[in-house]
Amino acid sequence: MTALRVGVIGTGLIGRDHLRRMATVLAGVSVVAVADVDAVAAARAAATVGAAVHRDGLDLVASGGVDAVLVCSWGGTHEEYVLAALAAGKPVFCEKPLATTPDACLRIVRAEVAHGGRLVQVGYMRRYDAAYRALKRTLDSGAVGAPLMMHCAHRNAGVPASYEPENTITDTAVHEIDMARWMFGSEIAAVRVLRPRASRNAGRLPDPMLLVLELANGMLVDVEISVNVRYGYDIRGEILGEDGTVALGDPGLISVRRSGQVAAPVPADWRDRFGAAYDVELREWVDAVTGGGVLTGPGSWDGYAASAVADAAVRALRTGERVTVTLAERPALYGPADRPAA
Amino acid sequence: MTALRVGVIGTGLIGRDHLRRMATVLAGVSVVAVADVDAVAAARAAATVGAAVHRDGLDLVASGGVDAVLVCSWGGTHEEYVLAALAAGKPVFCEKPLATTPDACLRIVRAEVAHGGRLVQVGYMRRYDAAYRALKRTLDSGAVGAPLMMHCAHRNAGVPASYEPENTITDTAVHEIDMARWMFGSEIAAVRVLRPRASRNAGRLPDPMLLVLELANGMLVDVEISVNVRYGYDIRGEILGEDGTVALGDPGLISVRRSGQVAAPVPADWRDRFGAAYDVELREWVDAVTGGGVLTGPGSWDGYAASAVADAAVRALRTGERVTVTLAERPALYGPADRPAA
Amino acid sequence: MTALRVGVIGTGLIGRDHLRRMATVLAGVSVVAVADVDAVAAARAAATVGAAVHRDGLDLVASGGVDAVLVCSWGGTHEEYVLAALAAGKPVFCEKPLATTPDACLRIVRAEVAHGGRLVQVGYMRRYDAAYRALKRTLDSGAVGAPLMMHCAHRNAGVPASYEPENTITDTAVHEIDMARWMFGSEIAAVRVLRPRASRNAGRLPDPMLLVLELANGMLVDVEISVNVRYGYDIRGEILGEDGTVALGDPGLISVRRSGQVAAPVPADWRDRFGAAYDVELREWVDAVTGGGVLTGPGSWDGYAASAVADAAVRALRTGERVTVTLAERPALYGPADRPAA
Amino acid sequence: MTALRVGVIGTGLIGRDHLRRMATVLAGVSVVAVADVDAVAAARAAATVGAAVHRDGLDLVASGGVDAVLVCSWGGTHEEYVLAALAAGKPVFCEKPLATTPDACLRIVRAEVAHGGRLVQVGYMRRYDAAYRALKRTLDSGAVGAPLMMHCAHRNAGVPASYEPENTITDTAVHEIDMARWMFGSEIAAVRVLRPRASRNAGRLPDPMLLVLELANGMLVDVEISVNVRYGYDIRGEILGEDGTVALGDPGLISVRRSGQVAAPVPADWRDRFGAAYDVELREWVDAVTGGGVLTGPGSWDGYAASAVADAAVRALRTGERVTVTLAERPALYGPADRPAA
Ligand SMILES: [Mg+2]
Ligand SMILES: [Mg+2]
Ligand SMILES: [Mg+2]
Ligand SMILES: [Mg+2]
Repeated sequence: MTALRVGVIGTGLIGRDHLRRMATVLAGVSVVAVADVDAVAAARAAATVGAAVHRDGLDLVASGGVDAVLVCSWGGTHEEYVLAALAAGKPVFCEKPLATTPDACLRIVRAEVAHGGRLVQVGYMRRYDAAYRALKRTLDSGAVGAPLMMHCAHRNAGVPASYEPENTITDTAVHEIDMARWMFGSEIAAVRVLRPRASRNAGRLPDPMLLVLELANGMLVDVEISVNVRYGYDIRGEILGEDGTVALGDPGLISVRRSGQVAAPVPADWRDRFGAAYDVELREWVDAVTGGGVLTGPGSWDGYAASAVADAAVRALRTGERVTVTLAERPALYGPADRPAA
Repeated sequence: MTALRVGVIGTGLIGRDHLRRMATVLAGVSVVAVADVDAVAAARAAATVGAAVHRDGLDLVASGGVDAVLVCSWGGTHEEYVLAALAAGKPVFCEKPLATTPDACLRIVRAEVAHGGRLVQVGYMRRYDAAYRALKRTLDSGAVGAPLMMHCAHRNAGVPASYEPENTITDTAVHEIDMARWMFGSEIAAVRVLRPRASRNAGRLPDPMLLVLELANGMLVDVEISVNVRYGYDIRGEILGEDGTVALGDPGLISVRRSGQVAAPVPADWRDRFGAAYDVELREWVDAVTGGGVLTGPGSWDGYAASAVADAAVRALRTGERVTVTLAERPALYGPADRPAA
Repeated sequence: MTALRVGVIGTGLIGRDHLRRMATVLAGVSVVAVADVDAVAAARAAATVGAAVHRDGLDLVASGGVDAVLVCSWGGTHEEYVLAALAAGKPVFCEKPLATTPDACLRIVRAEVAHGGRLVQVGYMRRYDAAYRALKRTLDSGAVGAPLMMHCAHRNAGVPASYEPENTITDTAVHEIDMARWMFGSEIAAVRVLRPRASRNAGRLPDPMLLVLELANGMLVDVEISVNVRYGYDIRGEILGEDGTVALGDPGLISVRRSGQVAAPVPADWRDRFGAAYDVELREWVDAVTGGGVLTGPGSWDGYAASAVADAAVRALRTGERVTVTLAERPALYGPADRPAA
Repeated sequence: MTALRVGVIGTGLIGRDHLRRMATVLAGVSVVAVADVDAVAAARAAATVGAAVHRDGLDLVASGGVDAVLVCSWGGTHEEYVLAALAAGKPVFCEKPLATTPDACLRIVRAEVAHGGRLVQVGYMRRYDAAYRALKRTLDSGAVGAPLMMHCAHRNAGVPASYEPENTITDTAVHEIDMARWMFGSEIAAVRVLRPRASRNAGRLPDPMLLVLELANGMLVDVEISVNVRYGYDIRGEILGEDGTVALGDPGLISVRRSGQVAAPVPADWRDRFGAAYDVELREWVDAVTGGGVLTGPGSWDGYAASAVADAAVRALRTGERVTVTLAERPALYGPADRPAA
């Protein structure tokens, strides 16, 4: 049992968190190399885990001592590093987005197809959340019948001042976009954005809004996107099936009775809510890569499809129109186009 | 304290239920007269409460011994009886719909305006449900800030075989249409119906569907309408405000732990869920009429507006398009056009 | 359908509430007579419902115009009025307690047995609460198997300054004492009171405490009695059966998400929680009496048994010892001694 | 960052689970040595993690390559191995119980005091459960005031056929015994066991029963112990404070609506409910030991106190009497005798 030797490109918030996770939480993996455009930041992060610092990401990817690569740098650089990893035949875990445009994602898809096997995983971590998995397990069990609709809410207490209108799609709603494709095993065929009057907390953002996804299998998925609700981080979802419904449970390790109320805490932010899912995500990726590894996580095609849908949704947001999503043909490498929901 | 003497037109299911309610549940009211197109049915119903049978509804309305009228007959007859009651200057409680077309409703509105005071109440009983009232009280308290969206579901276990596609709007969704107008004190400006693939239980009905209401105040209200969910009768609603949300509670007088689950019963039908609201509705109507009576319940204008919105929604269902709602000018009798949400 | 003519003795809080209920809420009953030791109070209360004032309770009971009697006076007077009603052969609804000592209760039991039919009902209103009824229905259905234990909490936000230590038993815990006998169809054979350190809000009261009831059928029922919890009025109960459990649901017409919490309101007091049960209780009593009336509510024997158990519990509170409960022989009038739990 | 080298004594169910955990889940630790009375079992288990097999536990403890020891063998052998580890000056994690009698535990306490620093941790893993920690955090925050009572239920779906009556205390209730001491920072001064009639599923076990703990700080903690509820594994707890209550939340990653119910799954067994707590427990132990290590987990004194209380509870079960618990004097090494609840 030799540990998987991982190199990490990008030492921002998420990069450093993955460094910490691999060094101090997960068995069977060690971080051996770090790169960042900011050499000082790279050195500081590398020191915390005893890793070597590389001049740049491409150098890190090429290094003989690196078995697999984590790409945590700025989105605009993802394509280059992922393509490099594919060229080197190394497994690469790329934080979302896979790349910043559908075309760039498609270049990665084609490179992976040319390589002839899956090497790329994209960091859509909801697929690793225990509650979403229980939702999917229940759906797949047939207990609530075939799915017809899903109602979701994605609410952030707040977002950074740097948030642009389209980030409500590309950074926020994109999680439900990937989740819906995975949950129901069907591509998204068209999108629509409906907007009420904006919250006084909205600033210049389109907040809240209702994103409506039409799936190729005929389902409708509606998602309330709110990025300034203030009261907490609140992720909701209920699937309507032909024989019943299944929903994410309410928060609640504890309940407190005082001052005329019985109350359960709401998560403060995504770390509170999805922290454990990141551990599971990396755990399963390491196991898959180490185990000779059939990657089962979200791959290049998923990164491409999410990008194409988000692209359409941004247009829908801008125009107020229903926008259809047209995908390239799905390579055989990624399995049948409309998988059964399983 | 002499009892209010009420005449009931129509002795179908709801008519007989109101007879029973006034005779055996509510203080201060007695049913003195009954009419029905089916004379045998009228006689049978009248006998249960010791009331006189009238030849027809118009005769009943005109009777000197009748202080106030309940119209529970087939919808197509409502206009005639309500106009007759207005002409007689008698308070009239009319089960929904007020009339079968917006124009017919408008004729009632005009007759009431000509009369110069409110005499008409329409049977939208959600306004009398304890949970909806708690929702409204919380909203009006400012605890969750100004409202932005509301997410609703209206699910029936099943509907009669006679249900036509438009009944999903005019009989089912119409409750949310009235509720939204009342809850938010704003008219509905446009409607849209989005449809996923139909449930295998749908028969020829558009089931399920997502009705989206755009309010004049800028809010969006979305309503899942399902009329064959089989698992029970399930009414849901969550209001998103600028500072928080308020939602209808889950069912649950009790919870049972057995066979690997902790479970609460879901109401079987609308009687289970809203039975008590009918008692409160009639109780408050009797009190208002007896007390010299400012009617506070839903009136002619509400019946008209609901009809106009339902009409637009039926068109939206048929065409798949967004349909705007144009209302006549609101007479001063019914207060300011956009009441604050209170 | 002539209304039942009721006379009310005692016009304190509960007496006036029953006056209001019979005059303005319930069909089929009218208050024709009122008596109170305070003649001014009697006159004032009588005026609100248009009833005659009687010189005293015995005079009211004897009045030819009174069909049935409600005893709402001070507990020390109950025996005399109930015995008078029995002597007059009139149905009598007596607020709890039936009388202030087990011996006094037993005199009523014997008088009723001598009369040869049930005329007395005691105001234990939990038996009319929808949630407790659902609990009992579920238990009796066999869904959770034969009952083994029940865990209860009875928490008051606060109690009047006049509360004496024994009132925690005789006024508070007595509701669970009656409920347990009714729920499980078994007498209480022994009681124990366990006491932790007192709350700083306790004043001179034994608050909180744990009352443990041993039933003749072998069950244990434990009840936390708290009379100063401040946060609200909280009534809890979970029955452990051989195959599962059934519990009272949590409060919750609505749930509110704000300030980091999802919260449901807790009832403020017993009116909030059990208000509707009082309506049902009187409704069913009026119907039973009017309908030629087999009384199904809690009767003299229940009043006696509750008194005997409360008596034992007061001794258990004072001594810290386990105290057995010895009941007189159960007259055949009240059915078999250990009814099946139904 | 060299990994902590751990030796594991005992390769039964829990031993093998810890082996797996340290080898494949936790960073920074590796299992280097294994011993078991069954040499074949030891060899098989060692092979799964690439560890050396030792002739016996004492030999393993003495091995120069072993930094720290995990004792997972049969309870009767714990004392010998823990004392050996203390003699060798090595950190030792001992699964519960610390030893099988209070006297044996006290010998370990004295040996540790003689050593002059804490080396022993006992496997009471509830202290590492996220929900219990949230309970304690809320209590310690003062949000519900000073604690007065706690109501608990510990329900197993079933237990092995080998379960003896006293195992309901020593294997089941002992978790609440440790939890109460930790939660409230107070020793247990007396215990009582109350018993209803037995469940038909009880076999020869005292099932269910109500264990009542009296704490030195004046609190009462009652615990329903059920070991054959069949419906699942159900751990409940509500603390009554002077200003409110805090309770463990209900289960519920998801909720399912079908067949007339809204239901959440109940955990099937302790693995479902507390699996993650074991990971956290070992994680924090490894970190404490590696980090130069102030042990913060349950120690020898806690193992001794739990043993003394369990001993008293077994006597209480047998006699039906209240049994006081007398502890030896608490050595200064373990801090002040009655810590504030923090
Ligand atoms: Mg590692
Ligand atoms: Mg009436
Ligand atoms: Mg009345
Ligand atoms: Mg390890």
